[in-house]
Amino acid sequence: MTWGLFFKGERLEVIQSVKKMQALAESKRREGKKIVLVPTMGYFHEGHLNLMRVGRNQGDCLAVSIYVNPIQFAPTEDFTAYPRDFDRDKKLAEGVGVDWIFFPDRKEMYPEGYQTYVEVGEVTNNLCGISRPRFFRGVPRSAQSFFHIVKPHATIFGQKDFQQYVTIKRMVHDLNMDIEVIGMRTTREPDGLAMSSRNVYLKPEERESALSLSLSLLLAKGLYEQGERRVEVILKEVRECITRHPYVKIDYAQICDVETMKDVSYIEGNAVLALAVWVGKTRLIDNHVFGEPLDI
Amino acid sequence: MTWGLFFKGERLEVIQSVKKMQALAESKRREGKKIVLVPTMGYFHEGHLNLMRVGRNQGDCLAVSIYVNPIQFAPTEDFTAYPRDFDRDKKLAEGVGVDWIFFPDRKEMYPEGYQTYVEVGEVTNNLCGISRPRFFRGVPRSAQSFFHIVKPHATIFGQKDFQQYVTIKRMVHDLNMDIEVIGMRTTREPDGLAMSSRNVYLKPEERESALSLSLSLLLAKGLYEQGERRVEVILKEVRECITRHPYVKIDYAQICDVETMKDVSYIEGNAVLALAVWVGKTRLIDNHVFGEPLDI
Repeated sequence: MTWGLFFKGERLEVIQSVKKMQALAESKRREGKKIVLVPTMGYFHEGHLNLMRVGRNQGDCLAVSIYVNPIQFAPTEDFTAYPRDFDRDKKLAEGVGVDWIFFPDRKEMYPEGYQTYVEVGEVTNNLCGISRPRFFRGVPRSAQSFFHIVKPHATIFGQKDFQQYVTIKRMVHDLNMDIEVIGMRTTREPDGLAMSSRNVYLKPEERESALSLSLSLLLAKGLYEQGERRVEVILKEVRECITRHPYVKIDYAQICDVETMKDVSYIEGNAVLALAVWVGKTRLIDNHVFGEPLDI
Repeated sequence: MTWGLFFKGERLEVIQSVKKMQALAESKRREGKKIVLVPTMGYFHEGHLNLMRVGRNQGDCLAVSIYVNPIQFAPTEDFTAYPRDFDRDKKLAEGVGVDWIFFPDRKEMYPEGYQTYVEVGEVTNNLCGISRPRFFRGVPRSAQSFFHIVKPHATIFGQKDFQQYVTIKRMVHDLNMDIEVIGMRTTREPDGLAMSSRNVYLKPEERESALSLSLSLLLAKGLYEQGERRVEVILKEVRECITRHPYVKIDYAQICDVETMKDVSYIEGNAVLALAVWVGKTRLIDNHVFGEPLDI
């Protein structure tokens, strides 16, 4: 127990330099401290804060990275529009006891002439791998950099981005990285909407339609609990439930194996119902895992 | 100073388990020890031993990995024929003070269902990237695994495989890995032949022809020292020098920028003359760096 632990969050440090972050992480590891990293794109909501609260309990040093990774956005996507508010984020992080905010600039994350990518195969081919072709070229690569810079013993990802969580787990496993990857359940608004930084894009009249995702997941959960295992039957109900709302357009609604991310036609063991739905000009994702929970 | 350091090499430990290696490396890092890794495919010659000798001086814990990586061989290449002699390697490593031999089996290096690759771009497109299309799909990925398992502060690569050395340096830099990559000059037989485990493939009548590589490099060095900078002129002499020998077939003879590995037409600053030559059924490589030495 160190002095720092009595004043959780009051010593929050913002680190921008890669070398400084590595040196700090290294010195803490040498002291035998457990480092936990929550990688984020900033603009915190309760979902982020819940990841940090779990991180606070799991480790001695809690690091949060804030970086809107340009590489994982396609030119048509919302990279420049993506909401940012560092001062607000800093206060919120302080409130839940974060020790370090790692906030690099692009030059350090992508050195001049950079040309190295990390390709994770099968698990990235379905779902968002189809609708967001750049996404899985950016995510594993930047996660790697954060792991090499912050040197965490454990890292926490939200399961709202279920495929991202599976991809990171796969990469860590395949490349023998000595890091525990923890997946955390989705935090929701009181009415069920999954928390997302992108919810601020929703127009007032679209807010009701955004509930179509969580409502259809509840419906699917109910069908599963009544014994339904046929994917075709469940997806038909899910699609109908979503498209009953105005302003919506389904990008995908699929049920996949939780390890391979391949479509299944019948639910045996664990499977994930993954949704991506446009509500007006906002693309929202959500999911429900059938079977044993995989999260904490 | 620990007891172990007084008896360099006498406590050589062979470690096959990934988890055990990671735990051992982690405990040494925690003690503040510097770990140096020499990654190899085994079947040691003086070249390997020189890398280890440098490693012995650079670090507190000297690790050597032995792994013939199946992924970097094309089906037509010599994966199964590649020479192996673990007991001999172990004795040689002991003799130069190696602390750990990490000797994993394939199942641990490539976990079931593995699907993650590391792609380094531009620097892998030329030279061996053309003649050995699988090579640079395997090398960065397995180097990563070794880095995550042995957790070195520094790693030593021979510059005989110059493009491999540049590729690893590029990957480490691009992914912000906190590892120093050291390139070491090529060790040669008394007559100039670059040491290689593949030299055992050479038939007695081919041995003389194998000298065509180092002879042509000497010739190029001489031309450079006389002020010649035109690549076309130097390569013409090099090619003539090589093809004067029987049994040879040039795979490539090119002069490239040492950072981008792109062909240059005029030597300014550092450049590398890289050779790959078939001597009978044996493919040999060698190179010479013009300008400031990059090795130790």
